[in-house]
Amino acid sequence: MVSIGIDVGSVATKGAVYDGREILLMEVIPTGWSPKETGKYVLEKLKERGKLLDDQIIAVVATGYGRVSLPFVTEKITEISCHGKGAHYFDPTIRTVIDIGGQDSKVIKINSQGKVLEFMMNDKCAAGTGRFLQVMANALELDVSELSKAGENAEPQRINSMCTVFAESEVISLMAEGASKESIAAGLLESVANKTYSLVSKISVEDKVFFSGGVSKNSLLVNMLKKKLGAKIITEENSQLNGAIGAAIYGWERKKK
Amino acid sequence: MVSIGIDVGSVATKGAVYDGREILLMEVIPTGWSPKETGKYVLEKLKERGKLLDDQIIAVVATGYGRVSLPFVTEKITEISCHGKGAHYFDPTIRTVIDIGGQDSKVIKINSQGKVLEFMMNDKCAAGTGRFLQVMANALELDVSELSKAGENAEPQRINSMCTVFAESEVISLMAEGASKESIAAGLLESVANKTYSLVSKISVEDKVFFSGGVSKNSLLVNMLKKKLGAKIITEENSQLNGAIGAAIYGWERKKK
Ligand code: SF4
Repeated sequence: MVSIGIDVGSVATKGAVYDGREILLMEVIPTGWSPKETGKYVLEKLKERGKLLDDQIIAVVATGYGRVSLPFVTEKITEISCHGKGAHYFDPTIRTVIDIGGQDSKVIKINSQGKVLEFMMNDKCAAGTGRFLQVMANALELDVSELSKAGENAEPQRINSMCTVFAESEVISLMAEGASKESIAAGLLESVANKTYSLVSKISVEDKVFFSGGVSKNSLLVNMLKKKLGAKIITEENSQLNGAIGAAIYGWERKKK
Repeated sequence: MVSIGIDVGSVATKGAVYDGREILLMEVIPTGWSPKETGKYVLEKLKERGKLLDDQIIAVVATGYGRVSLPFVTEKITEISCHGKGAHYFDPTIRTVIDIGGQDSKVIKINSQGKVLEFMMNDKCAAGTGRFLQVMANALELDVSELSKAGENAEPQRINSMCTVFAESEVISLMAEGASKESIAAGLLESVANKTYSLVSKISVEDKVFFSGGVSKNSLLVNMLKKKLGAKIITEENSQLNGAIGAAIYGWERKKK
């Protein structure tokens, strides 16, 4: 018997299969234009790879912004809940989760069962999200994955504008004035770290924080956050699947009750 | 004897010459890369056109975001003060001013002398400013000056994202789904009207509002604001010069005291 979680995000759709003890299978594909088709595809792919028969699947839980588009699931659960649960799966001692995705950022406090106690979310403003870094990398003519390495040994250039639109102009002016790409890259990551810090500081933080979402792959940003928060930051190669994993576990737990 | 006001904005630099009774001369040129050079150029141009000798000029007052870059002026005064004074020059019965420029928006309450009583300003977020409309016009492949005419007879398409960055993606998706440029243009102007309304509603508004700044040229937006505010909206062909005019008048008044 298994439970399947599907997390339809703005950039990627993730799927996970849980058997009550561990995650057996994972799948990540770009969301593209149709969250519904992509969600269905991820489900079929997982069934195929796991050779799963329909009556072996006790639940299919959808989460993520595109969850509303999946009519074929057994339940829909908010990202916040699923991210809390997913982080708990990775490390049950975690009580604080920071997730920065393609177009939002959130801080979640969870209890010892991975249940959400409190959260803060920004999904209204592109500043401080992966989108901000995408726009800025573009202005610097770098790939977003190159920002961390570029800024690694540089003195961060102060970026005054918090707004993505104004910061983009600022970056272009700074380059015209001769500031190095390296120092600008470091400054931009610092700007995201500051924005995240201000979100986090609305919630008290434990000395250990689980950092998930696409932006957690940025090691320079991880270091900056570590300093600002004065906390140990735990990242996971597969933390992108956090939401899908949490959804799969919720599906299992609810059916087994 | 005259006083000169120079308003160095993000997009254009404006200049005005005041003789204690009326504005004699005005000048508008793009700010370009150097606010200092542009400010100096506007001053020289006004002197030349007015055949003004240095000892006829009792004051040169700078305002606008670039005012800090003009070392040669006699005084620097905030935009808020100058906009209040400028609106008062256009119509002394005005008590509320809305100004939406290239990268900020403000609402100012003034007294019967054009002195500022209270104000609200947004210069942190591109949403609701001329910059928002610029980005959106670009996405629609229109010139920003064409938005009003395009949206004139259309049913506004609801734009869910307030953020400039997210709204741009939304506009692109809406076009891909077949929504008309006309309805999107109308929807975008409604978005700016809503943002302005929420700024205005933090201040009580009189039944007559002076609307200045580049965005006030957009007549569909003017109509939307009129409906939302339930107030008469006064615009002026030369309201772009509001700040420069106010600066010139302040210069005069302070010297004459
Ligand atoms: S500050 Fe900039 S990035 Fe944030 S909501 Fe406003 S326009 Fe968007």
